[in-house]
Amino acid sequence: MSTNPFKQEREKVSFNQEAMAELLYDGPEELQKFRKYQQIFADDPVLKFDPSKIDISRKELFAEYCKKTYRYHELFNQSSNPINKYCGLMFDEPLVGAVHHSMFVPSLQLLADDEQQKRWLQDALQMKIIGCYAQTELAHGSDVQNLQTTSTYDQATDSFILNTPEVGAAKWWVGELGLVANHAIVYAQLIINGQRYGPQPFVVQLRDLKTHKPLPGIDVGDIGPKYGYNSKDNGFLILNNIRIPRTNMLSRYVKVTEKGEFIPAGNPKIVYATMMKVRLGILYEAYYFLAAQLTIATRYSLIRKQFKDENGIERTILDYQTQQDKLLPYMADAYAMAFSFKKTMNMFQENLQRCSKNDFSLLQDLHGLLSAHKSVSTHTTLVGMEKIRQSCGGHGFSSYSGLVGRLKLWYPYSTFEGENTIMLLQTARYLIKKFRKSVRPESRNVLPPQCEYLRDHTLLLSTKCTAEHMREFLLLEPLRKMMRFTACFRVVKAANQLEDQVKIKKMHPKEAFDTAAGSLLCDAATSHTHYYIFNSFFEKIIQVNDESIREVLSKLCALYALTKIVERPDALYEGGHINGEQLKLMREAREQLLIDLRPEAIGLAESWNFHDNTLRSAIGSSKGDVYETLLDWVQNKNPVNKPEVQSALHETIAPIVGKVNAPRL
Amino acid sequence: MSTNPFKQEREKVSFNQEAMAELLYDGPEELQKFRKYQQIFADDPVLKFDPSKIDISRKELFAEYCKKTYRYHELFNQSSNPINKYCGLMFDEPLVGAVHHSMFVPSLQLLADDEQQKRWLQDALQMKIIGCYAQTELAHGSDVQNLQTTSTYDQATDSFILNTPEVGAAKWWVGELGLVANHAIVYAQLIINGQRYGPQPFVVQLRDLKTHKPLPGIDVGDIGPKYGYNSKDNGFLILNNIRIPRTNMLSRYVKVTEKGEFIPAGNPKIVYATMMKVRLGILYEAYYFLAAQLTIATRYSLIRKQFKDENGIERTILDYQTQQDKLLPYMADAYAMAFSFKKTMNMFQENLQRCSKNDFSLLQDLHGLLSAHKSVSTHTTLVGMEKIRQSCGGHGFSSYSGLVGRLKLWYPYSTFEGENTIMLLQTARYLIKKFRKSVRPESRNVLPPQCEYLRDHTLLLSTKCTAEHMREFLLLEPLRKMMRFTACFRVVKAANQLEDQVKIKKMHPKEAFDTAAGSLLCDAATSHTHYYIFNSFFEKIIQVNDESIREVLSKLCALYALTKIVERPDALYEGGHINGEQLKLMREAREQLLIDLRPEAIGLAESWNFHDNTLRSAIGSSKGDVYETLLDWVQNKNPVNKPEVQSALHETIAPIVGKVNAPRL
Repeated sequence: MSTNPFKQEREKVSFNQEAMAELLYDGPEELQKFRKYQQIFADDPVLKFDPSKIDISRKELFAEYCKKTYRYHELFNQSSNPINKYCGLMFDEPLVGAVHHSMFVPSLQLLADDEQQKRWLQDALQMKIIGCYAQTELAHGSDVQNLQTTSTYDQATDSFILNTPEVGAAKWWVGELGLVANHAIVYAQLIINGQRYGPQPFVVQLRDLKTHKPLPGIDVGDIGPKYGYNSKDNGFLILNNIRIPRTNMLSRYVKVTEKGEFIPAGNPKIVYATMMKVRLGILYEAYYFLAAQLTIATRYSLIRKQFKDENGIERTILDYQTQQDKLLPYMADAYAMAFSFKKTMNMFQENLQRCSKNDFSLLQDLHGLLSAHKSVSTHTTLVGMEKIRQSCGGHGFSSYSGLVGRLKLWYPYSTFEGENTIMLLQTARYLIKKFRKSVRPESRNVLPPQCEYLRDHTLLLSTKCTAEHMREFLLLEPLRKMMRFTACFRVVKAANQLEDQVKIKKMHPKEAFDTAAGSLLCDAATSHTHYYIFNSFFEKIIQVNDESIREVLSKLCALYALTKIVERPDALYEGGHINGEQLKLMREAREQLLIDLRPEAIGLAESWNFHDNTLRSAIGSSKGDVYETLLDWVQNKNPVNKPEVQSALHETIAPIVGKVNAPRL
Repeated sequence: MSTNPFKQEREKVSFNQEAMAELLYDGPEELQKFRKYQQIFADDPVLKFDPSKIDISRKELFAEYCKKTYRYHELFNQSSNPINKYCGLMFDEPLVGAVHHSMFVPSLQLLADDEQQKRWLQDALQMKIIGCYAQTELAHGSDVQNLQTTSTYDQATDSFILNTPEVGAAKWWVGELGLVANHAIVYAQLIINGQRYGPQPFVVQLRDLKTHKPLPGIDVGDIGPKYGYNSKDNGFLILNNIRIPRTNMLSRYVKVTEKGEFIPAGNPKIVYATMMKVRLGILYEAYYFLAAQLTIATRYSLIRKQFKDENGIERTILDYQTQQDKLLPYMADAYAMAFSFKKTMNMFQENLQRCSKNDFSLLQDLHGLLSAHKSVSTHTTLVGMEKIRQSCGGHGFSSYSGLVGRLKLWYPYSTFEGENTIMLLQTARYLIKKFRKSVRPESRNVLPPQCEYLRDHTLLLSTKCTAEHMREFLLLEPLRKMMRFTACFRVVKAANQLEDQVKIKKMHPKEAFDTAAGSLLCDAATSHTHYYIFNSFFEKIIQVNDESIREVLSKLCALYALTKIVERPDALYEGGHINGEQLKLMREAREQLLIDLRPEAIGLAESWNFHDNTLRSAIGSSKGDVYETLLDWVQNKNPVNKPEVQSALHETIAPIVGKVNAPRL
């Protein structure tokens, strides 16, 4: 019986790990639920992770995930409970029906009128009809208003004719369209009597419910292999003057009468408010994915030794400053994003409540917050995950590390649910509006809390950091001021740049925004979000009673701020807030935090409570048996090593052996 | 006959593109050779790119690359000509035998004595024996001195006994070991009469030449799926007290006599000097890979339109500042790395010549240069490639973009041939040595040219930038001073930090280096390399006669410097070289360059002369038929869309449809 190699490390952790876990999971109940949920997957023969299935083709992958999906339904009765929020953590690919449940069903619930819900909703919930959400086209993604698919009302037959007028108008990227869906909600430009009414949603049946063959006039299929997400059948759809009943236009908020009148009905803002949940879910996954990678890499870095120290003993790689610098700042990101998520979640729910009472006062602020938050979080996690896999050297490059599958799953997050640059620009546009409000006396007092720093921006931007000792930069209050200064400086700078282009260079405001201020606008939105995340973290720390936890979280929070500042100190410098000496002290403070947090690393990682089955890693399990597990998986789970495969492959190389001097053809 | 959509863009380019291409390819001859080489691949039915083969399993991939390899040999007679330097650009996976030709054969040529060369070399050249290079172990990679495999001399039988004493000592990651190789050069700790002589190379036969079955005592196989490079059979090897003749130790530089005497023979430095060629080859691939991605993304960004401008016309995405900012700085990197490669190549050849005359005076400097150069180049290309694929939105995520395959192929470059952080630290160690020389009067005048800035570091670090207008920051001389200042500041800072830790904190120098200065040391090596790359670029520009080329290259070179400075200006502040206002001007200068270089983009991209077949991209071909090609590949090249596959897949989803309310088990 060998002792666990992490035993000593775990004893060094200064804080109560169970209390930390409860803080992360908002109490013991949810924590137990998460543990139990993970255990169900670990115990189930179909759902549990199997390293021998990593190396399979798309076709096999798809079949595999169909099986998992069926089993998942058996266990969790998915149709009545939407996909559990932890589900995305359990596999390297999304389940079949994930898009149906997250997009098609909610769209019916929100956009269909009562009659239409009767027609489709129950069948959809039971997956008798499986639907997809066909919005994006080959030549148009973010710019929804310019979609080219048309839906022309034909009064004679009381129906719409849906058509794809050109190659670029083919629906594209639509999840679950390629193989699975038999229905779609198709967004098309509504045309009545030659007049356009913008993109509207139409329910279109795509495939025969019995044979699953495409219906006449429907050209549909999978759009091919991708960077990740390869079990998912993103598809294309070409509509050749398909005819659907008038009542197939989803009509809770807009109706077309038999006579071809277009009638808006109610305010669809509630729809948007609800659908923001998808973006919110991404924030949640961003820190969970990052935390899972950190758990793996932290453990591996405590097992892996490399080069001898001054006493001739091999040094554990986590004791190298360069390794700490690759992992601990991202640990700070993961914690910070977890706490900012909770704050944003509350705002989301508050907004939903208000909207249900026809109060849309919070909607714009929530949108302004969520857009850049989605971009910053997914970007942080992507860059972090890539750095973390590199921190594990060769073994991080092996799929058996568990790091690779999750990375691949993460790639599309920069693009889907709002392309990241466009998301930053949307928040930037919101911030510029708020800034302009802040300079007008009549509106300067109605800024939302997350933008209040703009109110006294002239005063704020004239402040100087007065700290003179390294220790002062370990305190959260001066760091908060710097984060605040940076956000404010960048918003004001971007606003001024826009104004200069318009006033001095006589540009159209749109031209200035698009062609002459994009980088500054993105910087402004990013810094605004960093400040918001930092603040959420800080606010949470103040509420913590347990001193040991407060202490370690304060260090993490300081590391979060110092990393952002040291990486991009230009606003503080340009704005005259700090001098070179203070920057030097901040770097030293940051190095001190790496030393202080080093012994807490395993505690911070394991507070996330990932089950070994969830991590899917040979190098990051709780037992620390890195090399034994790698060898076991390689010898027993690698399909390429089966004797019959080895023989077959030998046949393919035989023609090369000894024959490379064959004469030229 | 529609006109090419790039016609107008190409007409806007200000410089002679053919002359630029000749500059990149060192003259018209090499350029023609590259064009012809690419055309051979495009015309060959086996070698040419086929999008329908992207979505295949490892087993199929392996068979496919065996076929390509055979054909490649037929055409190019590879055994007598080592793999052509452009070959790595032509496929998304390495050819079978790539490691055999780049590592095994050269090792025999360099390390085997005359007798041994007679035994193995001709067979190896004809691939009758296929070999691999078994150095890395499961628990030891970078730290070669600590490898655990043993080779114990047994005088009684005049043989060595090779053994894997523990799990962690299994050979691991060895390219072409998993399936292909029948021989290996195994590095093992030589033990004679209980005394250790460090790791030495031994030729071990692994598999039967007829049956290809592993020989007794040899446990060998593939190490499983990876992040990329999945056609390559990286393998493991466990040796169970294998016996090999004494004459199987490669003996050009060390011999063991029958009596067990260990005799060094000659200076093996020439071996190291030659093997640096592999690292040099990576520098070369770094800019070619980046340039290929840029060609694709630049073209796509000229076809793709998104959102309407102030006149209601859809704006080409390359006209957005944010898009220019994603592509043009990497274009500057690609050009800068191309010219610095040429300079480094010259130094490599000069060193090889000198070494062949027993003059090893340049070896250390070359090592000091190449280590960080490998790290910085591969990192730049990785980060750039990822940013570039994101710049193409959804279509960049599709494997049909051509961006994905090349990205996957690039992932291991951060780790193999020297892990990137360790590479930076090796150069940093070299720089610290040079710095210490620079402060001693007797040695300060013998600094190599690339470190001469350390000579008068006190004077240099007291300088201040005097520029006051944006225009001044478009000139290369002031930018050169800033790059120089930054490199010098960081080396001095890292050296001081080390000294402080030793003198004030009483650390052992090794402890200080490993645990308290790693980040500063990495920064120093990075900035040193940026300065070197910038300088190489600058020197090249001065030699250019064609004014239009000189002008556009000067802009690219300025963009290179300004991007590095604006991204990490902290050394310039901390050292008091610039003030906040100057930083602002530099950002403005950088924005100006984006505007100036925008119309040159397609010319800069197409000067690289990539053939459409080499790019392997539906979205980046020279014809600009993005949407038509995507649709064609999806409909005609995507195996998942074959009717029989669609039907088979439908069977796998049938159990889910309408049955999700099945009772729990």
